[in-house]
Amino acid sequence: MSGKGELRFIGLVESSGDLSRVKIFPEFCAGLQGLSNFSHITILYWFHLRDNEKERRTLRVVPRKHPGAPQVGVYASRSPSRPNPLGLCVVELMRIQDCTLVVKGLDALEGSPVIDIKPYIPRADSVSNARVPEWTLHGPLT
Amino acid sequence: MSGKGELRFIGLVESSGDLSRVKIFPEFCAGLQGLSNFSHITILYWFHLRDNEKERRTLRVVPRKHPGAPQVGVYASRSPSRPNPLGLCVVELMRIQDCTLVVKGLDALEGSPVIDIKPYIPRADSVSNARVPEWTLHGPLT
Repeated sequence: MSGKGELRFIGLVESSGDLSRVKIFPEFCAGLQGLSNFSHITILYWFHLRDNEKERRTLRVVPRKHPGAPQVGVYASRSPSRPNPLGLCVVELMRIQDCTLVVKGLDALEGSPVIDIKPYIPRADSVSNARVPEWTLHGPLT
Repeated sequence: MSGKGELRFIGLVESSGDLSRVKIFPEFCAGLQGLSNFSHITILYWFHLRDNEKERRTLRVVPRKHPGAPQVGVYASRSPSRPNPLGLCVVELMRIQDCTLVVKGLDALEGSPVIDIKPYIPRADSVSNARVPEWTLHGPLT
């Protein structure tokens, strides 16, 4: 068995930097109600530049930004080259202006489509003592 | 601007409970290399029973499992009814047998398609002191 699903883009990374602006399209803006009560959110976005057959057939990578990393499977990495080019980033929500979120720490290129937003709930999402291999301790966060 | 993306299902939640079995389809199994070096992973899956127009048009919900929760936007909730029926769950990886993961704490129905797996990296993913509204402190984790 296999299958497919259809994703609808709900917004766009308008600008990227220390602070990033994430615009949510007007038709989805009502979904933001109450979001400002959370200090952190998880943003799911689309690695649009990797949405092609070559990148989506990638199953093994050497994480180049992490010195000393061995070859690993894409599911043991945060590589943007993977069968579903989905990015996941936990960010601090600084403010919401109309339908635009201003967030800190978003590792997404300008122009990336946004797919979903989840409120960050520590009792579900935070595992401070999770075990990781040594190569993940150096280089960028993901 | 808006747009769409195509998701390919990479596996299936075979059984669900305190321990859950997640089968990765053979063509994606090479992507698991090195995953067992992580104690925790984030599983992204598809709320397949909510993949219809009515549920995907939902923008506001009252989180019923959380006593006292007010009406909130879907992006301030973990509701399975949302424009993209994507589920996100941080779980403990107990073991990998061939192409099947045995995990603890997966809040996904049996039969849910699996979309992606990310290694859990505390310095990127763990925010133990994130601020949340009071209603999220009761009821199920998400």
